[in-house]
Amino acid sequence: MHISEFQQLISKKYERRDRQRGIPATFMWFIEEVGELATALAADDKQNREEEFADVFAWLCTLANISDVDLEKACDKYTSDDVKGFKPK
Amino acid sequence: MHISEFQQLISKKYERRDRQRGIPATFMWFIEEVGELATALAADDKQNREEEFADVFAWLCTLANISDVDLEKACDKYTSDDVKGFKPK
Repeated sequence: MHISEFQQLISKKYERRDRQRGIPATFMWFIEEVGELATALAADDKQNREEEFADVFAWLCTLANISDVDLEKACDKYTSDDVKGFKPK
Repeated sequence: MHISEFQQLISKKYERRDRQRGIPATFMWFIEEVGELATALAADDKQNREEEFADVFAWLCTLANISDVDLEKACDKYTSDDVKGFKPK
């Protein structure tokens, strides 16, 4: 599935409600999922890890939708050989 | 670009170093990017927003790589009609 397809799927299912909620409140849900990912990473439950990764990605797409950002297009910065900003060790 | 292609691109460029760094230290870099996304969302700079969304996604892929999680496969939970766990208003 393309990045843009997944973002559109999330838009179709949730964007109307997401926009009503607004960016700050949606960011708080996103962070809740990030916290659940941290818990999953510290545990040894592969299925739960998978679920939490998907949830964080879904909420990132939700934030992108209500911020009018095309995530796949934004990722162009990583497809060149000269990536700026990625952290060293 | 497929979700899996982007994850593989990040793997090819960074996974060896990411694995050396380990999950806890990599999670800290991820959170730094999440913080930068928060700053970008609070500002009115579309280009910076796009960059920060891409960075958060790239670091999420890095975490998935070193956790042996296939992010595209994990997203299957969102492609059915009955999504569990997505937050209400």
